Amino acid sequence: MTIKLALIGAGRIAKVHAQAIAGSADAELAAVSDALPAAAEALARASGARAADVDAIAADQSIDAVLICTPTDTHADLIEKFAKAGKHVFCEKPVDLDLARAEEVVSIARAAGVTLMLGFNRRYDPNFAGVRAAIDAGRIGDVEMVTITSRDPGAPDLSYAARSGGIFRDMTIHDLDMARFLLGEEPVVVSAHASVLVKPELKGIGDFDSATVILETASGRQAVITNSRRATYGYDQRVEVHGSLGVARAENHHENTVVIGNADGYRSAPLQNFFMTRYTASYAGEIAEFIAALKQGRQPATTGEDGVVALKLANACVQSVETGKRVTV
Amino acid sequence: MTIKLALIGAGRIAKVHAQAIAGSADAELAAVSDALPAAAEALARASGARAADVDAIAADQSIDAVLICTPTDTHADLIEKFAKAGKHVFCEKPVDLDLARAEEVVSIARAAGVTLMLGFNRRYDPNFAGVRAAIDAGRIGDVEMVTITSRDPGAPDLSYAARSGGIFRDMTIHDLDMARFLLGEEPVVVSAHASVLVKPELKGIGDFDSATVILETASGRQAVITNSRRATYGYDQRVEVHGSLGVARAENHHENTVVIGNADGYRSAPLQNFFMTRYTASYAGEIAEFIAALKQGRQPATTGEDGVVALKLANACVQSVETGKRVTV
Amino acid sequence: MTIKLALIGAGRIAKVHAQAIAGSADAELAAVSDALPAAAEALARASGARAADVDAIAADQSIDAVLICTPTDTHADLIEKFAKAGKHVFCEKPVDLDLARAEEVVSIARAAGVTLMLGFNRRYDPNFAGVRAAIDAGRIGDVEMVTITSRDPGAPDLSYAARSGGIFRDMTIHDLDMARFLLGEEPVVVSAHASVLVKPELKGIGDFDSATVILETASGRQAVITNSRRATYGYDQRVEVHGSLGVARAENHHENTVVIGNADGYRSAPLQNFFMTRYTASYAGEIAEFIAALKQGRQPATTGEDGVVALKLANACVQSVETGKRVTV
Amino acid sequence: MTIKLALIGAGRIAKVHAQAIAGSADAELAAVSDALPAAAEALARASGARAADVDAIAADQSIDAVLICTPTDTHADLIEKFAKAGKHVFCEKPVDLDLARAEEVVSIARAAGVTLMLGFNRRYDPNFAGVRAAIDAGRIGDVEMVTITSRDPGAPDLSYAARSGGIFRDMTIHDLDMARFLLGEEPVVVSAHASVLVKPELKGIGDFDSATVILETASGRQAVITNSRRATYGYDQRVEVHGSLGVARAENHHENTVVIGNADGYRSAPLQNFFMTRYTASYAGEIAEFIAALKQGRQPATTGEDGVVALKLANACVQSVETGKRVTV
Repeated sequence: MTIKLALIGAGRIAKVHAQAIAGSADAELAAVSDALPAAAEALARASGARAADVDAIAADQSIDAVLICTPTDTHADLIEKFAKAGKHVFCEKPVDLDLARAEEVVSIARAAGVTLMLGFNRRYDPNFAGVRAAIDAGRIGDVEMVTITSRDPGAPDLSYAARSGGIFRDMTIHDLDMARFLLGEEPVVVSAHASVLVKPELKGIGDFDSATVILETASGRQAVITNSRRATYGYDQRVEVHGSLGVARAENHHENTVVIGNADGYRSAPLQNFFMTRYTASYAGEIAEFIAALKQGRQPATTGEDGVVALKLANACVQSVETGKRVTV
Repeated sequence: MTIKLALIGAGRIAKVHAQAIAGSADAELAAVSDALPAAAEALARASGARAADVDAIAADQSIDAVLICTPTDTHADLIEKFAKAGKHVFCEKPVDLDLARAEEVVSIARAAGVTLMLGFNRRYDPNFAGVRAAIDAGRIGDVEMVTITSRDPGAPDLSYAARSGGIFRDMTIHDLDMARFLLGEEPVVVSAHASVLVKPELKGIGDFDSATVILETASGRQAVITNSRRATYGYDQRVEVHGSLGVARAENHHENTVVIGNADGYRSAPLQNFFMTRYTASYAGEIAEFIAALKQGRQPATTGEDGVVALKLANACVQSVETGKRVTV
Repeated sequence: MTIKLALIGAGRIAKVHAQAIAGSADAELAAVSDALPAAAEALARASGARAADVDAIAADQSIDAVLICTPTDTHADLIEKFAKAGKHVFCEKPVDLDLARAEEVVSIARAAGVTLMLGFNRRYDPNFAGVRAAIDAGRIGDVEMVTITSRDPGAPDLSYAARSGGIFRDMTIHDLDMARFLLGEEPVVVSAHASVLVKPELKGIGDFDSATVILETASGRQAVITNSRRATYGYDQRVEVHGSLGVARAENHHENTVVIGNADGYRSAPLQNFFMTRYTASYAGEIAEFIAALKQGRQPATTGEDGVVALKLANACVQSVETGKRVTV
Repeated sequence: MTIKLALIGAGRIAKVHAQAIAGSADAELAAVSDALPAAAEALARASGARAADVDAIAADQSIDAVLICTPTDTHADLIEKFAKAGKHVFCEKPVDLDLARAEEVVSIARAAGVTLMLGFNRRYDPNFAGVRAAIDAGRIGDVEMVTITSRDPGAPDLSYAARSGGIFRDMTIHDLDMARFLLGEEPVVVSAHASVLVKPELKGIGDFDSATVILETASGRQAVITNSRRATYGYDQRVEVHGSLGVARAENHHENTVVIGNADGYRSAPLQNFFMTRYTASYAGEIAEFIAALKQGRQPATTGEDGVVALKLANACVQSVETGKRVTV
């Protein structure tokens, strides 16, 4: 049985997902919707699908599931609409920046009996997944300390930042989910520091561009996250997990493998700079997971609940910065 | 103006080229031909093209150029047919294993005034191209010594080997072209050694699986090639160029960036094992070059003549092994 | 003029320092003292010096300076004794585990007009010094975030741990000094977490084996330290400094450069496991700095005051763990 | 029983060996000789030995063995003198540039029943020895191809070059011995190419600065050596051995572990530039081997015979360049 999917949104990431669907033997793209009808038309045509509006998609009994690729502030309403229409839902993170609304929407999906997968795409990166696989295979023993380094090539526009929920809910939230993925135990205490070193204008809207976080679990495992909205050398995305029997890490992706040596030393290429290039494989991986989960009638590896927990941790970071205290989650 | 292309052959590499054409704004795939009509039909349907036989394609005035993706022993005849029909031709290497026939076909294409591009795909690999770009930018000064390491994950079937022209014409020929690409001056003297260390059955057909070659240019630049039909750690493809001001090299592609450390040391991933994975970017790059060359009315970076020169060098390697002497080309 | 030195202590590190002195054109070793006279005799003989007791050394007008290489709990008294005797003093860290006593001794040395150099040897490691040199040369712009990873191959004996002042004063203190060295601005706020994951017996004496620290400066620069008393893959000592124009890091020292590849991937050597091997160059460097500072009549790069500041930061870490709050220094 | 040694020569390398002897529990330095008596005096004084002339050393019954650290053209006569005097001999390579004389001297030592160790120091480098250990442990299966890259930071003075025997006998000879060490089977056929790319004046004395060599064994194992008298990025010394089950290589030594990243990529340090720094451990290792072999009454790992075989291979390289043919050894 082929799973029939609809894309809600026809932008950059929707096009990536359309390709992933085209490459799947188990799914096909039936419909595309977008606030700009021409965009929906173009993507539908290139994909052998039809353009449609969200209501028509919700009403279409032949469509099994939707992929929500629209701006953040539309996520919750769209999840609610499609869950109530009985569609399974894949949604890019976050569910919603407001915790109560996020929890409500997750409840609605659960009550409706539909699958709600949240696109924490980094878990599907082959490198990070490889680190987790090494842990699961017992190759590094018991996890003790996780170190996550995540630095964006540049700070966002002020207008984006103002709607983003701030660095912890917009950027760190990926790393908080990654920490959960690698720690193998829920963080219960959070300490966070944050400052503005990159883009002074962020002070005016109460946001930060440089942040460090410590997470601690009940058994004393610790994770450290360092974030910056600056990385002059490309998009910096690394993890390291230290265990009782060994250490596992995932290194960065360089633009190429060229090395040039002379009296000044050896120079290798900077990192891939664009997140969609760096995470190409992870975007394909999350869609493959969504299709596989639906096909097999099981929960996907990242659900709406994961989005709620990560948001709680992000909120705890904000509170820790504001109060100067550890926050218990 | 959009360039109309036809694929001759619908196998593995033809599918890769079809994707590259689909991603081009300057070209479209009009027709697909294959000895197995069903294969042509399937690829045509998936690509928005039509299935057709070679004669129909040759006769179709709307088709500008063909991409020949058929077995080696059909290349020369197909190039001749399409050149005489006025089509520009892209052909996977080699033109022909017989030097006289290869030269004849290149002459025919020249006389017909059509472009004949030979797919020495490795020149379009971003890493090797990056090394060449470093040379062209003067970053390592005058080229002095080139080292090329090329090892296949495994030896070919005997039946393939018997039709392949032997290791020098089948495998080393890529490295001979790469040596020309990086030396910046034509090799004029060749010494080669070869032996059977991997697959004893190759002795029965007079072929080898392990080979080393020295190439020397008129000014004394030297290139060394080492080839093996074995590489237990993946598909090993490296180049290094030593110059008067520095050294440039391209390293291998690993399967992922995971590193695991313990008391036995640090383990990183093996190399990508499949040549089509390793050279994904180079296959896209050669098609982009073909389309760009046609669009701009210029010669492509690798032509039929390059195929002829590389074959002469491969023949010289064979002669050097047989005679125990340096061979002047 | 040759500087005449005496070694107080004839143990492992004293022998290393004796070699460094032997290699200096500006200094000579005149005397060696040790609680075990035979040890002092042996080292003196091998070094062309004489054995003597501490009082004789303090009274010897020909001796310019002493190097204190005795157990931690003797440091303060010995510094006081020799400072009052007008000798310049080099002392391995720490001055004293008690902040008040450490400050007192530093005052005494200052009042006596003698140089008191504290052996924070890691600042003299060529790799870490190279990172600092890159900062000083403006190669990474303004420092924004410092990441220090420091993991010992194993946990100390309980008896050592009980006298050590705990992980923050014994182990982290090196990293706190390194953070100061690299941040270029004094930390003013500290958050620390700590747990027991490696050696459960440490709980009984109120110590920890796994710790993470965030330091923040007045301008918002942040440093993160992760410490473990375990590292199965050797002695792990890394720093990374992220700045407005680039990033600089110092990697670990491996046992050798051998790499072995096969179908399981590529294996390189574990890290040098013994701190005195890893830090060979830094021990020679600190002695060279002491001699150079005396020769040039200037302050050495690390003084008793640096020891006091690092101890204050270590105490702040302890307080942060105990209170669950950020501590202002 | 302590082995009593004498140093013949008091130059740079003799000083290094004096340190190695000082660190040995099984040997002591009794005497030092040099054409410059003051040099012998100074090194003797610093080492607790006495200065003496070669005749006195040869006549001294208490001296067990000598280390010859004098210019190349004195080696053969000194070996002969000391062998006839019943002393065991360690000699830096080569025995002699003339094959007949080298063979004669080796025979004399054999007839005299003394040990003649030749200092092919690179076999004692921990990295290259580690590669060999991996082979011996079966970790890469049967050896198939050896690749040796050896590039000096700069070309020698013309006066040195003129007395050196030429690049093959002076520089390549180390790599020829290394090839033997790693191939595990004697080379029987040699092809060599050579040219002048670095220092045009070398043409006037019939020497070269750039060379490539292929060695082949009876079973078809192949080794490739690339040599240059130029390396702008430090002293380049690498080996790689490809086997039926894996590959083993030894990488270069960098000056430090600092890496700096920015928009131009990542820069690491150049290589250690001075051969005595790069090979510090190997010089200590060869002396330790000499002492151990004498102590245990066994042959050392590298003997005069190894020097003869390597010289034959070097001569074969010269002949191959001159004749343009493979040379059978």
